Amino acid sequence: MTAPERRYVITFGCPDRTGIVARIASFLAEAGGWIVEAAYHTDRETGWFFTRQEVLADSIPYGLGELRSRFAAVAEQLASRSDWTITDTGERRRVVILVSREGHCLYDLLGRVASGELDVDVSAVIGNHPDLATVTRAHRIPFHHVAFPAGDPDEKAAAFAQLRQLVDASTPHAIVLARFMQILPPELCADWAGRALNIHHSFLPSFVGARPYHQAHRRGVKLIGATCHYVTAELDAGPIIEQDVIRVSHDDSIADMVRKGRDIEKIVLARGLRWHLENRILVHGNKTVVF
Amino acid sequence: MTAPERRYVITFGCPDRTGIVARIASFLAEAGGWIVEAAYHTDRETGWFFTRQEVLADSIPYGLGELRSRFAAVAEQLASRSDWTITDTGERRRVVILVSREGHCLYDLLGRVASGELDVDVSAVIGNHPDLATVTRAHRIPFHHVAFPAGDPDEKAAAFAQLRQLVDASTPHAIVLARFMQILPPELCADWAGRALNIHHSFLPSFVGARPYHQAHRRGVKLIGATCHYVTAELDAGPIIEQDVIRVSHDDSIADMVRKGRDIEKIVLARGLRWHLENRILVHGNKTVVF
Amino acid sequence: MTAPERRYVITFGCPDRTGIVARIASFLAEAGGWIVEAAYHTDRETGWFFTRQEVLADSIPYGLGELRSRFAAVAEQLASRSDWTITDTGERRRVVILVSREGHCLYDLLGRVASGELDVDVSAVIGNHPDLATVTRAHRIPFHHVAFPAGDPDEKAAAFAQLRQLVDASTPHAIVLARFMQILPPELCADWAGRALNIHHSFLPSFVGARPYHQAHRRGVKLIGATCHYVTAELDAGPIIEQDVIRVSHDDSIADMVRKGRDIEKIVLARGLRWHLENRILVHGNKTVVF
Amino acid sequence: MTAPERRYVITFGCPDRTGIVARIASFLAEAGGWIVEAAYHTDRETGWFFTRQEVLADSIPYGLGELRSRFAAVAEQLASRSDWTITDTGERRRVVILVSREGHCLYDLLGRVASGELDVDVSAVIGNHPDLATVTRAHRIPFHHVAFPAGDPDEKAAAFAQLRQLVDASTPHAIVLARFMQILPPELCADWAGRALNIHHSFLPSFVGARPYHQAHRRGVKLIGATCHYVTAELDAGPIIEQDVIRVSHDDSIADMVRKGRDIEKIVLARGLRWHLENRILVHGNKTVVF
Repeated sequence: MTAPERRYVITFGCPDRTGIVARIASFLAEAGGWIVEAAYHTDRETGWFFTRQEVLADSIPYGLGELRSRFAAVAEQLASRSDWTITDTGERRRVVILVSREGHCLYDLLGRVASGELDVDVSAVIGNHPDLATVTRAHRIPFHHVAFPAGDPDEKAAAFAQLRQLVDASTPHAIVLARFMQILPPELCADWAGRALNIHHSFLPSFVGARPYHQAHRRGVKLIGATCHYVTAELDAGPIIEQDVIRVSHDDSIADMVRKGRDIEKIVLARGLRWHLENRILVHGNKTVVF
Repeated sequence: MTAPERRYVITFGCPDRTGIVARIASFLAEAGGWIVEAAYHTDRETGWFFTRQEVLADSIPYGLGELRSRFAAVAEQLASRSDWTITDTGERRRVVILVSREGHCLYDLLGRVASGELDVDVSAVIGNHPDLATVTRAHRIPFHHVAFPAGDPDEKAAAFAQLRQLVDASTPHAIVLARFMQILPPELCADWAGRALNIHHSFLPSFVGARPYHQAHRRGVKLIGATCHYVTAELDAGPIIEQDVIRVSHDDSIADMVRKGRDIEKIVLARGLRWHLENRILVHGNKTVVF
Repeated sequence: MTAPERRYVITFGCPDRTGIVARIASFLAEAGGWIVEAAYHTDRETGWFFTRQEVLADSIPYGLGELRSRFAAVAEQLASRSDWTITDTGERRRVVILVSREGHCLYDLLGRVASGELDVDVSAVIGNHPDLATVTRAHRIPFHHVAFPAGDPDEKAAAFAQLRQLVDASTPHAIVLARFMQILPPELCADWAGRALNIHHSFLPSFVGARPYHQAHRRGVKLIGATCHYVTAELDAGPIIEQDVIRVSHDDSIADMVRKGRDIEKIVLARGLRWHLENRILVHGNKTVVF
Repeated sequence: MTAPERRYVITFGCPDRTGIVARIASFLAEAGGWIVEAAYHTDRETGWFFTRQEVLADSIPYGLGELRSRFAAVAEQLASRSDWTITDTGERRRVVILVSREGHCLYDLLGRVASGELDVDVSAVIGNHPDLATVTRAHRIPFHHVAFPAGDPDEKAAAFAQLRQLVDASTPHAIVLARFMQILPPELCADWAGRALNIHHSFLPSFVGARPYHQAHRRGVKLIGATCHYVTAELDAGPIIEQDVIRVSHDDSIADMVRKGRDIEKIVLARGLRWHLENRILVHGNKTVVF
């Protein structure tokens, strides 16, 4: 497998009007930019326009800094308020993974990293239990155990402070809650907004909170699901990135649901993380545009 | 397509113990009964045993009445309290369909009846709007218009009384709420319990109540669904028979969701109705066993 | 439901180079064109670029003829050889449906037309058996019976000549083989190229030709499928538009497969037809780009 | 998670007749056997009856040997020729995994074993390349490298002899070809019949043989799949155990298909292996009954 060519990824959003595509495309054409992927979307209700473009880095005669400053002028011209980013696929992505005891999502992510499918640096794995230290270290990745004692608010606050420090140390592009069983305090949700991804083991908005498979079993649903979403202060209510489901029947016990659900959790989380790291996800209000 | 052979369908439920299968199977073997389908299930939490068996009618040397009275003795022997039914596939099933303005589920059901896929008598279609009268009558099926005036409780009660009369006239095996936009009063839910099937246009328990596609759009889910369930007095909370989903994206407007969702509604309702008419569904508490 | 706004749909394909998007977008921006949908794709192997754009008709200050002649100049400028079309969603689409005896796809399409979901004129339904005349005429659509006698090549050629005449009479945008059981002769395939859509009841390329459910049953597959594709002279080998599958098990007889498969056939055909009529499908070699 | 109770699993197949279920159920009832799962199937074409029953081991007053010899008498009574097995879930299953360079299926299986989801002994992993030695040994599982030199038939035969020896050393219940890129010689297929499972990266019977994703890309299919099947002497033509698919589009390169397909391969293989080890799969001709 040859390395994919280095690309600049531009995401841009502003109130819709005529001529946006023309302006951006002309700007890129004038720079000789070879567009290898382009997507557009307008949210009809809010009148907001979104685009994401991938340009071959080698086709642009100047560097990332110059591209950014030139694009800033274009953005300003197009709208008084706009959101935009330009990133370089040549910059290696850093990921921190938070876990508890359930290892299936971690095993899956580490397998994808080891096989080269997910080409990222896992800076650290942090567990509120030590169970997954061995497998993490077998992949030559640092594992940190941070205990979250139930009951004592001061100790818990201290644990979150330690967690924050360990996470922020690597300024990660993504903080993955891979079945991490602690609810992040609001200030962490705020500081990590748009970078913290959670996998919830239900088809949200059904079965928010604890033990969703138990809830699903009690309700007698015929499909169970998993949801990857950005973490916000409201539990399991952040912008949804990806979801999928698997069929169950009256024959499936809760243990069967847990087992079947894991396969969906792993896939949904891996997809969501990939899209996030490729800057494919534009958040708008409490919803996502996934290009 | 040759007609399927006539069968007796036995469903039976009682507290689990050893020897139930042996007792029923021996009873059928002694009668010379040729079992063409058999399924078993035990609910581990409640310790309740379920079975459904299909026997070739011709293989039993006596008639349905005799079979029932002989089986009653077996059932009594097995448990002091049990639920059982024996039905004859040779008895044609009668169905009443309740509709409003949205015709896609009705068109779909009528198409299945016309093409012979769903081999039932549609005794009547009853609409709280007259819109679907023409298509119904083109299929030579009686259509009744019962208006449900908003506001006046007496007129509404009268309308429900009329609805009940029209439905009960044919003692239907199934009363299908095919996007019927009225909430049945508790006494109708009670009287039609286990015979009234609703199709709800969401993946329950998400998006109970009105305008589920609007709710789904607002929440930004990545899959939309449909749920066929038995009607109970609590809105959209009855035992779930079948569910399915279809993928949507940020690109889908509410109108797109409505359109895509229809295909799932039609299929889920048709499956649920077929299983119901084939006595495949055993209700247990608020859950279903679908054999 | 309000009528969707009238739009011009532009599809364009040419060898990839920089500046295509900029040129087209600038052309539209200069005309004041409000782009409501835009999609791009480059086939890496053949280096061919594709785009499809929807522009609000009211936002362009001149008519379709003028738009076409102006765009022709742009196209010529961009490439010496290119494929492009501009169509007007205000022009009502005409569809001819070819059937045999199996009515499920026809019922489904007529239901979609009657409920307004598929906003087209069905100019005619033509059957090589008369079975589906009644349902067609109940929808006030002309039905023609053209018998295709087995054995005599001259009579068969005459039947195809009659079929061609009946089809061509309405210059349809789409000719739908809705489980039509005759193989079109090469000259009809050629003349109707890009307009004739077939639904094949298997997941192609598995189970080409006759009785695919029988083939699937014999092979013991665990999923069955359906494929909507453009008709070409080579049987069941044309460009694939859409496919889907449904799960089956050892428990499903061929009759069960036929029944379950029908639901997939109907949906896959309806999706393919919609995309075709919305000019979403660009054929490239033996493959499709579906925007 | 508590350990599941020890069970005896009985599978039985013979020509269908009345009284089989009664005979087996009575036999079990007389022994006091508590049936926790029971499934039946009759193949209508061949008239062959199949059943699988799970009985709590503790409910039977004698041991496995006695159960087998008593059941042998029942089987003989029921049919002159029958296939039956009785296995003990208390006997730990041994699995050997064959790999090449692609590690995703191996990573997935090892993750399932490590997390306790797949409760088996992996006796050995054998690779025709050494690439996956490190990860295997990190799980404390022996890895053997057996080179299969292209070209020289004698060396290849010697390699297969070595492979056989390594595999047979642990008399495994399952030999898993987890993207093993060598075609087993007929005598190994014969000796390992019913125990060797392969994962093929296409929705068979489409795209038999080498590079199925390339074949799929060339044909322009809209879904790609994976198939788990028993290995037989005819390439990719053995009895199908499980299949699944995932959606692709014109936008997906071969590399994208390879990546997306991996998720399906892993799941389909894991399901197939689980069912095999639980004795859920009864092979009949070239088809499987999966209870």
